[in-house]
Amino acid sequence: MVADLVDAAPVRPLLAELGEAIRTLTAGTDARLMGLEPGDLTVTIGVGPRLVRTVDPALPGAKDLPRFSREQIASRARGGDLLIQICADDALVVPVVAAALLERAGDRIQERWRQSGVRGANVPVDRGRAAPRNLFGFVDGIVGPHTRAEQERDLWLSRPAPVADGTLAVLRRMELDLPRFAKLSVAEQEAVFGRHRATGVPLSGGTIASGPDLGAKTPDGRYLVPADAHARRAHATAVGVGLMLRRSYSTDGPAPGLLFMSFQNDIRTFTSTLTSMDNSDALLEYTTTTASATFLVLPGFDERHPLGSRLFR
Amino acid sequence: MVADLVDAAPVRPLLAELGEAIRTLTAGTDARLMGLEPGDLTVTIGVGPRLVRTVDPALPGAKDLPRFSREQIASRARGGDLLIQICADDALVVPVVAAALLERAGDRIQERWRQSGVRGANVPVDRGRAAPRNLFGFVDGIVGPHTRAEQERDLWLSRPAPVADGTLAVLRRMELDLPRFAKLSVAEQEAVFGRHRATGVPLSGGTIASGPDLGAKTPDGRYLVPADAHARRAHATAVGVGLMLRRSYSTDGPAPGLLFMSFQNDIRTFTSTLTSMDNSDALLEYTTTTASATFLVLPGFDERHPLGSRLFR
Repeated sequence: MVADLVDAAPVRPLLAELGEAIRTLTAGTDARLMGLEPGDLTVTIGVGPRLVRTVDPALPGAKDLPRFSREQIASRARGGDLLIQICADDALVVPVVAAALLERAGDRIQERWRQSGVRGANVPVDRGRAAPRNLFGFVDGIVGPHTRAEQERDLWLSRPAPVADGTLAVLRRMELDLPRFAKLSVAEQEAVFGRHRATGVPLSGGTIASGPDLGAKTPDGRYLVPADAHARRAHATAVGVGLMLRRSYSTDGPAPGLLFMSFQNDIRTFTSTLTSMDNSDALLEYTTTTASATFLVLPGFDERHPLGSRLFR
Repeated sequence: MVADLVDAAPVRPLLAELGEAIRTLTAGTDARLMGLEPGDLTVTIGVGPRLVRTVDPALPGAKDLPRFSREQIASRARGGDLLIQICADDALVVPVVAAALLERAGDRIQERWRQSGVRGANVPVDRGRAAPRNLFGFVDGIVGPHTRAEQERDLWLSRPAPVADGTLAVLRRMELDLPRFAKLSVAEQEAVFGRHRATGVPLSGGTIASGPDLGAKTPDGRYLVPADAHARRAHATAVGVGLMLRRSYSTDGPAPGLLFMSFQNDIRTFTSTLTSMDNSDALLEYTTTTASATFLVLPGFDERHPLGSRLFR
């Protein structure tokens, strides 16, 4: 869910109270769960650029996302002050927790939009890690900062101190043109992604966990991973950026789509990748972005260090 | 999904083609699945009162639903010509199948509204049967025609021939006021439903599978199942109707709610029950109905007997 702070509502107590509610909800001790088991409930809170700028316009997360091509974004679906991401294995828990947090915030925040989504069936990648399929039938989010070293390098913010251990989230909701994509042959679909649909293996070969070999060519000199394939246009090395942790959700209603989420410690990881895609990624033809926002995801908290207290004084 | 037939589109070939698409989609042989496994995909097709009346205004399913209290229904969310209910364990399959069926129908039908929903965690009831919780935390759909004899009596239409083996569906989408319900104590919540929240057992005792004992009283003469409890106001015997098969879904976005669905062979089973509830059901205070429709669910089909061919000549 994306919400706005209502004018003049002080940020620090609001975030502290939301954190406290998150603590009792995840512990299963909150009456607003109405007896439902929270299970693996996880709530992630991010603050939008406007709020970050009130602290320091030089901080990570202080800049709005630029506009890109293929956007049809209503003004209420662009940006926003507050990201409330609620994840749980039991889908019933999500709207119940959303209602509980909205109630705790009261008239201090105003909902802009919400989108529920699901993770498709998991396809094993490597070392116990798996990735889900999207509505095009392709495995999604294979490449990313999956080792601890990669996460320290590309995922978590290390400085300055008020944002350390946080990260930057990008949220892009897009509609997918399923009928048009379904009209392509499987080989044509695979050329769009640069991977095999059934297995997730790059068209350059190897296993699903192998990086695509962008230099590999057929005997007659064509790239195995086509020049406009998504796996090439969004490839971190080709773009010249770090790795982004993608964690996207498939959506239904009002239209079939993808709620793309990425987490990275440098917003250019996302913006440079999308700029590279904007120029020639074959996948973009089948997508229309209907919401776009970025948030500074706040680091963890406990009873002695309330949510957001390091950033908002 | 609820859709309208576009003027002058002939019903019989449309339904036959939808049936054929359902056959290839459920068989997993349809390219529009984009390689996704259909698993337990089930598609249920119903036709609205306007279409039934074109055949015979005396048929079951020919009457529109009346209006009830606590409705805030936009005109596009009332009624409709076509119900397309798509169920699958893999949530990704649902929007993909919806897109495939919409594409097959082309410009002959126009989508009115769609709502995705989930079934909550199952609570065992009896003989391998289970029922899910709803967003209020209560077990939903416990009572119904669960034996074969009850289903023949109350669920399936037996005549006239063109509708035999079909049934009547009622679809009611409602928003649930979670914050207000959560403010009640657990005992107050249980008085609203007439059942224990954790177990689903009626307040009159027994097991979850026991029918509520509507005559049971405390030593000081109060009903154990309160006079305005949902389990009393919607009780088939108290209302004087047959059993309805309820199969509801919890929803999120734009608001937390319930997509109520019931199936019965006499529409008065639903309308008399809701009239009884309208007068005094304590649960209604926490609901606002935002969509309402009824459909004649077509009997099954195969290659030699296309979907809808018995009704539309």
